[in-house]
Amino acid sequence: MGLEMAPVEAERSPEQPELQIYPLCRYYFGARDARPCAGETAADRALRLKANFAARGLRTCVHGVLLVELSGHPHVLLLQVRNSSFLLPGGRLRPAEQDVQGLKRKLSSKLAAADPNGDHHWQIGECIGMWWRSEFEARPVPYPPPSTRAPKECVKLFLVRLPMARQFVVPRNLKLLAVPLSQIHDNAQVYGPIISGIPNLLSKFSFNVVRN
Amino acid sequence: MGLEMAPVEAERSPEQPELQIYPLCRYYFGARDARPCAGETAADRALRLKANFAARGLRTCVHGVLLVELSGHPHVLLLQVRNSSFLLPGGRLRPAEQDVQGLKRKLSSKLAAADPNGDHHWQIGECIGMWWRSEFEARPVPYPPPSTRAPKECVKLFLVRLPMARQFVVPRNLKLLAVPLSQIHDNAQVYGPIISGIPNLLSKFSFNVVRN
Repeated sequence: MGLEMAPVEAERSPEQPELQIYPLCRYYFGARDARPCAGETAADRALRLKANFAARGLRTCVHGVLLVELSGHPHVLLLQVRNSSFLLPGGRLRPAEQDVQGLKRKLSSKLAAADPNGDHHWQIGECIGMWWRSEFEARPVPYPPPSTRAPKECVKLFLVRLPMARQFVVPRNLKLLAVPLSQIHDNAQVYGPIISGIPNLLSKFSFNVVRN
Repeated sequence: MGLEMAPVEAERSPEQPELQIYPLCRYYFGARDARPCAGETAADRALRLKANFAARGLRTCVHGVLLVELSGHPHVLLLQVRNSSFLLPGGRLRPAEQDVQGLKRKLSSKLAAADPNGDHHWQIGECIGMWWRSEFEARPVPYPPPSTRAPKECVKLFLVRLPMARQFVVPRNLKLLAVPLSQIHDNAQVYGPIISGIPNLLSKFSFNVVRN
């Protein structure tokens, strides 16, 4: 049947926002020295977060969603720590730091060669989602928690538009993996609630795989 | 502590898109005669969908996400059929019908007084998400299924911006309910995968509750 091979893109409305993605083979992946690891216990971390909240209020984290193509399907770049938990590249903003500026700093520290003066030309796109924690140990939810108490943490996800080629240099204690949307979707058990919701957040985009 | 009552909105970035929502009490809810119900069996439906796909290809459905405020928290308007399944207002496009035009027709048929000539002034906003079914009985996924076979169904979700007051007139065989985001989120067992993902899709918006 002729319909069997019809390209899916043709069915999308002209008003769908388009997202260019490039094949994984366009990118070079290297390693550099491990970043010093705090090695703090869960109890120490809880105390630190509580003290920081008392001093500075809401903790804001910014994360980047970086996409590449493999086998015709979009993949998200995730960092893996010690063969266990998966993370999006990003991290906590400094006090008074702007979202975009902080995310560029965090992307450079986790995905680029160690060069304190380097401008790594990250192209930060729109915020695609936000999650909130009512308490530091609470499960995050994608809306401000309906309570009169101030939330403790806000996590913002930004689309990062990759150029057609670039180099990623990752600290040796982290692994950078390209994981298909189909594996992440609805798989909170492995990837956690925030990452497993990314395919849903990206579903309004029409992916345009650029091969040339 | 002063922080406990700090408004959440103040923490959002200025570039967050804003969404005006109005209190539920601004809207009037009425009923009208039940719409004739097909009463077809699951087997009949499967045959009908298969025949339609052979004749016309991909089935496209458009659904509206309508929001109101209650107790300071956004609620989504859902239709309930026979005290069981929950639906977003919307439905299938006719052949060659445009998304926005089809959604307006469907919203009028399910949420407005029966008036074939009435223009019910639905303000259709952006598409916030799309889901695909590789087979009619398959669980939908928020990306084109990574296979060479053409998908059978595409479901598009559009934000519908409500005016500060309006009347909803619902057929008697349907119930219109306002369900809080906190109840829908991550509750695919009750609301299904598409509706339970709506809070995530809306999380990038800053909700502005207009009371005056």
